Amino acid sequence: MKKYVSIVLFVASSAFAGEGMWMPQQIPQIAADVQKMGAKFDPNRLADLTGDPMGAVVSLGGCTASFVSPDGLIATNHHCSFGAIQYNSTPKRDLITNGFLAKTRDEELSAGPGQHVYVTTKIEDVTARVTGDTKLAKMTDAARAKSIERKQNELVAECEKPGGLRCRVASFFEGSQYLRITQLDLSDVRLVYAPANGVGDFGGDIDNFEWPRHAGDFSFLRAYVNGQPYHPAHWLKVSAEGMNDGDFVLVAGYPGRTFRYKTADEVKNYQEFVYPTSIRYFTQLINILDAQGKGNRDIQIRNASRVKGLNNSLKNYQSTNEGFVKDHIWQARIDREKAMVAADPGTAAILTQIAQTNDTVRKTQARDMTISWIAGIQGSSGFSYRVSPMVSSAMQAVRLAEEKPKKDLDRDTGYHDRDLSRIKENAERWQRVMEPGSDRAGLRYFLGELQKTGGADDSVVKYIESKGGVDKFLDWLYANTRVGDKDERLKMLGETSKQLMARDDSMLQFASVLLPAVEEIDAREDAVTGAMARIRPAYFESLRKVAGGNLYPDANGTLRITFGNLQGYKPKDATWLTSQTTVKGLLEKETGQDPFASPNNLLAAARDPKKTAAYTDPELHAVPIDFLSTCDTTGGNSGSPTLNAKGELCGLLFDGNYESIDADFLFNPPMTRSIHVDTVYMLWVLEVDGGQNLVREMGLTPKL
Amino acid sequence: MKKYVSIVLFVASSAFAGEGMWMPQQIPQIAADVQKMGAKFDPNRLADLTGDPMGAVVSLGGCTASFVSPDGLIATNHHCSFGAIQYNSTPKRDLITNGFLAKTRDEELSAGPGQHVYVTTKIEDVTARVTGDTKLAKMTDAARAKSIERKQNELVAECEKPGGLRCRVASFFEGSQYLRITQLDLSDVRLVYAPANGVGDFGGDIDNFEWPRHAGDFSFLRAYVNGQPYHPAHWLKVSAEGMNDGDFVLVAGYPGRTFRYKTADEVKNYQEFVYPTSIRYFTQLINILDAQGKGNRDIQIRNASRVKGLNNSLKNYQSTNEGFVKDHIWQARIDREKAMVAADPGTAAILTQIAQTNDTVRKTQARDMTISWIAGIQGSSGFSYRVSPMVSSAMQAVRLAEEKPKKDLDRDTGYHDRDLSRIKENAERWQRVMEPGSDRAGLRYFLGELQKTGGADDSVVKYIESKGGVDKFLDWLYANTRVGDKDERLKMLGETSKQLMARDDSMLQFASVLLPAVEEIDAREDAVTGAMARIRPAYFESLRKVAGGNLYPDANGTLRITFGNLQGYKPKDATWLTSQTTVKGLLEKETGQDPFASPNNLLAAARDPKKTAAYTDPELHAVPIDFLSTCDTTGGNSGSPTLNAKGELCGLLFDGNYESIDADFLFNPPMTRSIHVDTVYMLWVLEVDGGQNLVREMGLTPKL
Repeated sequence: MKKYVSIVLFVASSAFAGEGMWMPQQIPQIAADVQKMGAKFDPNRLADLTGDPMGAVVSLGGCTASFVSPDGLIATNHHCSFGAIQYNSTPKRDLITNGFLAKTRDEELSAGPGQHVYVTTKIEDVTARVTGDTKLAKMTDAARAKSIERKQNELVAECEKPGGLRCRVASFFEGSQYLRITQLDLSDVRLVYAPANGVGDFGGDIDNFEWPRHAGDFSFLRAYVNGQPYHPAHWLKVSAEGMNDGDFVLVAGYPGRTFRYKTADEVKNYQEFVYPTSIRYFTQLINILDAQGKGNRDIQIRNASRVKGLNNSLKNYQSTNEGFVKDHIWQARIDREKAMVAADPGTAAILTQIAQTNDTVRKTQARDMTISWIAGIQGSSGFSYRVSPMVSSAMQAVRLAEEKPKKDLDRDTGYHDRDLSRIKENAERWQRVMEPGSDRAGLRYFLGELQKTGGADDSVVKYIESKGGVDKFLDWLYANTRVGDKDERLKMLGETSKQLMARDDSMLQFASVLLPAVEEIDAREDAVTGAMARIRPAYFESLRKVAGGNLYPDANGTLRITFGNLQGYKPKDATWLTSQTTVKGLLEKETGQDPFASPNNLLAAARDPKKTAAYTDPELHAVPIDFLSTCDTTGGNSGSPTLNAKGELCGLLFDGNYESIDADFLFNPPMTRSIHVDTVYMLWVLEVDGGQNLVREMGLTPKL
Repeated sequence: MKKYVSIVLFVASSAFAGEGMWMPQQIPQIAADVQKMGAKFDPNRLADLTGDPMGAVVSLGGCTASFVSPDGLIATNHHCSFGAIQYNSTPKRDLITNGFLAKTRDEELSAGPGQHVYVTTKIEDVTARVTGDTKLAKMTDAARAKSIERKQNELVAECEKPGGLRCRVASFFEGSQYLRITQLDLSDVRLVYAPANGVGDFGGDIDNFEWPRHAGDFSFLRAYVNGQPYHPAHWLKVSAEGMNDGDFVLVAGYPGRTFRYKTADEVKNYQEFVYPTSIRYFTQLINILDAQGKGNRDIQIRNASRVKGLNNSLKNYQSTNEGFVKDHIWQARIDREKAMVAADPGTAAILTQIAQTNDTVRKTQARDMTISWIAGIQGSSGFSYRVSPMVSSAMQAVRLAEEKPKKDLDRDTGYHDRDLSRIKENAERWQRVMEPGSDRAGLRYFLGELQKTGGADDSVVKYIESKGGVDKFLDWLYANTRVGDKDERLKMLGETSKQLMARDDSMLQFASVLLPAVEEIDAREDAVTGAMARIRPAYFESLRKVAGGNLYPDANGTLRITFGNLQGYKPKDATWLTSQTTVKGLLEKETGQDPFASPNNLLAAARDPKKTAAYTDPELHAVPIDFLSTCDTTGGNSGSPTLNAKGELCGLLFDGNYESIDADFLFNPPMTRSIHVDTVYMLWVLEVDGGQNLVREMGLTPKL
């Protein structure tokens, strides 16, 4: 099957090994092979985004989910609903610990502001409109980047309808192709069911990215429109049949980001700078937040989702970092580029140009990364609140005030009119994670870092010194701000730069000092982006010559489909991990101590043959829990529906094995595995928790 | 195959599951089944101790070994020769780290005094002579024990020939049967080859009792007689063929001790007292010795074999301790006894008598155990040097002086004329492990323990108080003794009690205070032994009624044979460990840091296809290292020859998996596995180390 060549080593696989995050429109080209793998339906159906089953697959923004009833019931991971569960949790009503079940629709809880459901309805190729302009070639690199961004903004603006349709122009093959994606935006989302954390996150950070796994990482939400349940055109049929080793599966979802087409030069910088530095930053911040939460459940709850996210990122980065060495990824890239140059000598010049372009930002990258962490930005791709939710909030207000007077099409990404409601929702939502003690402790560490990476001449460092040094600066910063007050924070988002400065708020002042530093970083990145828009398409042309056949694009948060089979793997000598786990294994792991503490009702049911018989797998002789597949997934795929050979929902993807993490750079067929929770386990847990109403809603008959 | 019922649960296995440490004379009863398992030779040959292959199987006292050449070359484990390797090691000539190869016989090194090779030549049933005396029934329990001991001594005395033949009367089925075993005693043993510690103990204490395993735990010794190599009547043919999963294997060796016929009452005391207390003692002593050796390689070498032994015991005890809970061993015994009582109501009274007898020593068992550790004794079975090699040496001198004036037949076990040369050899050998700082530090902890378990009225505690308390006592004890001086220590072994006391040596004085305490313990144990001699045979009669078929006896350090197959196992959910490891797995584990640091020449060879091709397994695609079997083994089996279906040497047993350790109490067919080093690996390592002379001596042609 030569056309599915590994993009890294150009080794044709003897079987369709699972590699490939295919765009739906590519499926017809590989349909015959998908059928050979075991699909019992016509794979061409998958190209129809508004048909069955793809019409049922939705994005939660960062996670994937799917409709499973005509009344808008949505299945996704427990960890994808964690924000909604946390939003509704208090020390007195601890839904994280105890789980939640709405027995009627009235009992369903708002998932919180900012929780959206996006249904992809259209994908159009707009490459000609984005890069067809012949003037682009003559522009400076920075101007080219700005021009391309503006074209994308135009394409989005003509498509979007506030409150109903959301559009995005995404770049594929690093600027070689642009597609406009139209999504229906549903903003009234409610929490329907979440298992106890001891089920949904059984094994916790210890088991994260590990196999064998026993987490019931699922939950149910519901989309509403005008106060009534949303009625999707398509929903998935839930299978209660169970899986067997070798079975065909496919995963449809929204993988976030992969790096399979990065060059050797780029991989080297990831290996030598980006990953080691990020690992240090994640580790420090986790330690700081853990120390703050010691003995205080309220602070623990406030920091819970951040710590969880940081731990997740840390393990991810650590594994990839090990993978660089173990899997010789840099060498694999060198080999690939040698092959490209051999096939097309012109590639050498392209690779040199890419390397020279990257060089322009390498000198300042250490300082730029520290600033980005402090300001809460990730390059130009929008805000996060990595170190300090309070500084990030102030930055957002200051930046919004600066962008708003501009014409909408000229604003930076993330500050268009269409973004305003989300910005406000986030500002509300962030109230839950604001904890001044933790905020200050994290910021203190990173200001120390900035002194090292920026040096004494750095503008931000000088400003902090002018306030009497780090600790005096922090005293002042946290004593003279109202950013922590939700109402004030929301008001700030409506104010002009002048109004904001008139507030004499310390956090806003600090943000206005950070802003020029951030803008400088953006400008440097624009220049790189504009140069790559020039160079990268030629790189892909050369790659296609060597690879032949179909190339799938790197993940970019757009809808993809991957195909595989249930299959174990051999992580080390004399050790074979099989593809399915069961409740028996859960009882082996159970210690009664977090993270191996299942709720009592589940334990009692697991030990009661009368309660397990109806869901017992005839071959495994126990209730199945999770399974492994060879599907090619990454972050963003969490919650993705996993369909069996009949096209029915048989599981939800929720993780990859530890050995798969560096697959973001290099897919390794013998080792790369996705981890799914089995729908049989979901149904059994639901029934044990008394959720027979939901089992019926999914068209199945309760068995307990 | 109903007759091989599990002795614990009486569940007939559907296949010959590996359970059973059979006496050679039992083999004819099971020969047909051994052939069904895969043996390609007549199993009845195994009943002939002086024939092929059993004539080649020898004991090293604590380990097993086998002749592999007509010139007395002996294969055993690296850890069985560790004492000999240590004996020849100095910081300058570190054979532990670097290994050793004698290229010629002249270069072979003495294995040290005390290293013997014992060849079993005869086994006779002497039950009638030991327990046939009708007067025994009327004696007190203590007198009965003494009388039985005296009969055994007589039987030994009439059989032994000093310097040539060694005899022993061993009890089977706890006094139901007595066999006299005659062994040829070869006392000139030399070290021929040991791999570097990084091969022989690759994985160290971390991998100890673990699978997958990659240790090359083998070495070669040679037996000499009159300065010439010993020529055994039989030696094993070494196989270079390699093994496959499922292959038949047998292990012939000297398993030390199992507890499969202990009662529920006895198991409960092991679980509640013996194991937890011993684990605490092992842990403390290891910590103390580690602390003493910190930064001092000389002290580390002196303590090395003790620390190794203690760690080994600790892991063993910990696993069994977990097994008590995990495998519900106590409950299994209760169930067994219920079945026995159901089949034979008289068993109830027998069990009550056993429990009442045990009760007589339970009240003092905590204090008795502390005294035993301090005095260096294990019950009445002879000296060890668990806490203090110096106190143990003094105890031996004092005790020997007390026993020697008695008639030989009346002396305590271990103090007969036949034992004198071994006592002297040990006294010489111990010089290597004498380290006053470590000695004192260990003793100090246990004297503190004695204050708790003995209480203020304890005679030994009172003595120490009379010296001004523990620290002042220790100051005096170590400042006024010559026990640490080898020549003086050897002289002491020839002196009378009066001469010893005239020395005014502090250690000897302390030993004379300990002696009455030790004698009290011996007396209490004699009473139990005498009572059990009365009760236990009836217990086994009852057991046979329920079990039917053949019962194999508990291990007792005598020659046994166990049969099995190469087979993996499932330690936990979704995890299957396969039965063979290879050099590829070794390279995966290699870190360059102890205990995962292979020597450079081995690493270079492992990475060189030219150096591995000739020994590469066609199915594993690499040089095999270790394999797993279902054979039933325990401590003492170390170094045992493992024979393939043709009866050729295919490996050496060196360990059991972690899950197998509690098999001393309960054999668990799905989990109990033995670990062997493959002869293919032994030959490859030998060749890599330049030992082609030994490959040739074993009748094989070198391949490298």
